[in-house]
Amino acid sequence: MVNTNENKPPHHVVIVGGGFGGLYATKALNDADIKVTLIDKRNFHLFQPLLYQVATGALSPADISSPLRSVLSKSKNTKVLLGEVNDIDPQAQLVFMGDEEISYDSLILATGAKHSYFGKDNWEDFAPGLKTVEDAIEMRHRIFMAFEAAEKETNPEKRSRWLTFVIVGAGPTGVELAGAIAELAYHTLKEDFRSIDTKETQVLLLEGLDRTLPPFAPELSQQAEASLTRLGVTVKTKTLVTNIEDDIITIKQGDEVTQIAAKTVLWAAGVQASPLGKVLAKRTDAECDRAGRIIVEADLSVKGYPNIFVIGDLGHFAHQNGKPLPGVAPVAMQQGEYVASLIKQRLKGNTVASFSYTDRGSLAVIGQNSAVVDLGFIKFTGFVAWLFWLLIHIYFLIEFDNKMLVMIQWGWNYFTRNRRARLITGKELLQNDYDNTEKNRQAVNV
Amino acid sequence: MVNTNENKPPHHVVIVGGGFGGLYATKALNDADIKVTLIDKRNFHLFQPLLYQVATGALSPADISSPLRSVLSKSKNTKVLLGEVNDIDPQAQLVFMGDEEISYDSLILATGAKHSYFGKDNWEDFAPGLKTVEDAIEMRHRIFMAFEAAEKETNPEKRSRWLTFVIVGAGPTGVELAGAIAELAYHTLKEDFRSIDTKETQVLLLEGLDRTLPPFAPELSQQAEASLTRLGVTVKTKTLVTNIEDDIITIKQGDEVTQIAAKTVLWAAGVQASPLGKVLAKRTDAECDRAGRIIVEADLSVKGYPNIFVIGDLGHFAHQNGKPLPGVAPVAMQQGEYVASLIKQRLKGNTVASFSYTDRGSLAVIGQNSAVVDLGFIKFTGFVAWLFWLLIHIYFLIEFDNKMLVMIQWGWNYFTRNRRARLITGKELLQNDYDNTEKNRQAVNV
Repeated sequence: MVNTNENKPPHHVVIVGGGFGGLYATKALNDADIKVTLIDKRNFHLFQPLLYQVATGALSPADISSPLRSVLSKSKNTKVLLGEVNDIDPQAQLVFMGDEEISYDSLILATGAKHSYFGKDNWEDFAPGLKTVEDAIEMRHRIFMAFEAAEKETNPEKRSRWLTFVIVGAGPTGVELAGAIAELAYHTLKEDFRSIDTKETQVLLLEGLDRTLPPFAPELSQQAEASLTRLGVTVKTKTLVTNIEDDIITIKQGDEVTQIAAKTVLWAAGVQASPLGKVLAKRTDAECDRAGRIIVEADLSVKGYPNIFVIGDLGHFAHQNGKPLPGVAPVAMQQGEYVASLIKQRLKGNTVASFSYTDRGSLAVIGQNSAVVDLGFIKFTGFVAWLFWLLIHIYFLIEFDNKMLVMIQWGWNYFTRNRRARLITGKELLQNDYDNTEKNRQAVNV
Repeated sequence: MVNTNENKPPHHVVIVGGGFGGLYATKALNDADIKVTLIDKRNFHLFQPLLYQVATGALSPADISSPLRSVLSKSKNTKVLLGEVNDIDPQAQLVFMGDEEISYDSLILATGAKHSYFGKDNWEDFAPGLKTVEDAIEMRHRIFMAFEAAEKETNPEKRSRWLTFVIVGAGPTGVELAGAIAELAYHTLKEDFRSIDTKETQVLLLEGLDRTLPPFAPELSQQAEASLTRLGVTVKTKTLVTNIEDDIITIKQGDEVTQIAAKTVLWAAGVQASPLGKVLAKRTDAECDRAGRIIVEADLSVKGYPNIFVIGDLGHFAHQNGKPLPGVAPVAMQQGEYVASLIKQRLKGNTVASFSYTDRGSLAVIGQNSAVVDLGFIKFTGFVAWLFWLLIHIYFLIEFDNKMLVMIQWGWNYFTRNRRARLITGKELLQNDYDNTEKNRQAVNV
């Protein structure tokens, strides 16, 4: 009954990060005689493509999140650990979480990216970005608090500042945020206030390049811009932000410098690899690109370390056409599945071809009944594109109950143009949110 | 065409607090030629009876909240203001929100209660209470983080501290929390961990009086206790908490003093009127009870101020049988409707009989398929009571979409014993949640 392998512990794969890349790798290792440890600093997988719907009050965080333990409860070879990996020893094959160390045979790093202010980190306080649940709650707080503050404000100039929303960056997130805020102002909230007319709201979408949705085909960018304009969004392309200070944002269009007075500025412009990238580069001498992403080999491993892999937004893979792959969910998912299969094949003594990304297309939603879809062989916009966007997103929501709940809420929002989840929460005092420069008691406009 | 009333502005009712009392008063004033201003420091009405389901990961905050503006968007005579009233001038008929003042003809105060530690305010950090959405998120964080920390802990004694949950107070909230945590540990989470067996969890419910659910009939208390015990909860009655410090809770049962080592202590024991009660008492010389509630006249007005009313948990109404009415939603709702009708009748020159509370019964849920219902003329427990509890709560959830969503999530939870919303969120660093006394690097049990 003695098996020669009995005393050999199974191959141990440590995966850091439970986003699309890490989770798909973990699931693809389910069926193997491999021990898997998935480490994440959060206890849930977040469906980031829908985070803008939390920021604008359409969905709750739990609707787009799945507890990692629950997703993986049937994967008995997998252990989930809650913690933050802050160091790696590639020679000793160890990762460190503070004082704790874990040894690995293969390591998959998939810690993703955060937003970047191109060196102007002091802008973050005025112009928050959207990567985490907390970011979304913070944006939701600012958006709905702006309408509340406008309702109380009697000075027309100040009121207009509260009713001006600037979104920096017209990639998919920026376009989706701008569209959702325009719908809030011009439809959802229009009956809810007594002193202000929410239709006076201004929504500005700024983009440094020459068109919205730069990764898409030019004709789709044009149609997206036309849809946004119909919704009431003012789109400014070839526009650079040169300063953000309190409630003044300075922009440059060609040689023309303008200032916009706005209380709410949302950042959807740049991303930067998560800090673990830098640590890995230091420990392995791997090369990074300007955004801090690790430049990986054709099999997604780190140069000189065939058992360390970097996938998703943390990696820079340019073997396909010289340009790095975009930081989108399908890239991360395919890379996760590829590395899982590579590890399994390698253990069997087989070799595996280089990674190759299958681009099935891109899509972005602009508002109710309006989206753009680019599948390469076909491009379409409008209601059909919107339905397609809806189905794809529901399909990929990890758990069945989330799918059902999100569908029902979307159905409800669709027919009523309501937004259920528009709670202003958080521990800060309310008074801080108001412009309290005048310290004399004054009558409120009731 | 000149109407004699044309130059007289309508009677202005200011309502402070959008809980059950304030919201029901506001809605009952809908149809009158009265101007209504509802002031709340939050932008949503919270269905507090279900807050324990947010704390235990079954529902999201938005599922049990309704934006006040959306609930009242059709009440065109009503203006909603976001802000905190911190002073009152009953002579000048003004309320103050920081620097702003609002004048009223009639004033309804309905700011409710918060939890109280009977003078031991330093216990709050170790034993949070459950009154707000933020409280529920904090409890959810602690409960789920405790299981995560236990999973990583190798020392059995420390692990057991993480797996011990103490709930102080066996009123409806305490009973509901204890039942929900026992279900989490013994059912929902039992497949999710690899190092710990969540069935080793201990759930202790402490009560100072001689039985659980003191407001209910004694036979129902007995049945509730039996159901809790079946679920795995250890119920200790006649037990006083004498100290809570870090992770040691000291209790006294008769003369016997014991210490319990537990990382998670939840407070469901005492309440205390919100601070506006004290302000009102100072300005009007009204009498307060020990819990800080304003002792009101038979028509819910403040002595000497017939146009100021106190309703719900902020008021002490003892005209019915000498005992103050309990701090439950039905009392607040009936008082809100009573005061609205009194104001309308008074404007017509009519007088109104004293307030009288119709007690339709009490109910509490213990766990899946188990609840206790006491309608006075009939008492029942078990599955039928649980279904009854479910229907009543769904009926009273303010908005249609919330009802539907909550029903679907309950249905899902019922059949799968799952809990969707078990996100650990908040801005604190994860590492703070762990016991980091040993500063040497050590191997983790993976």
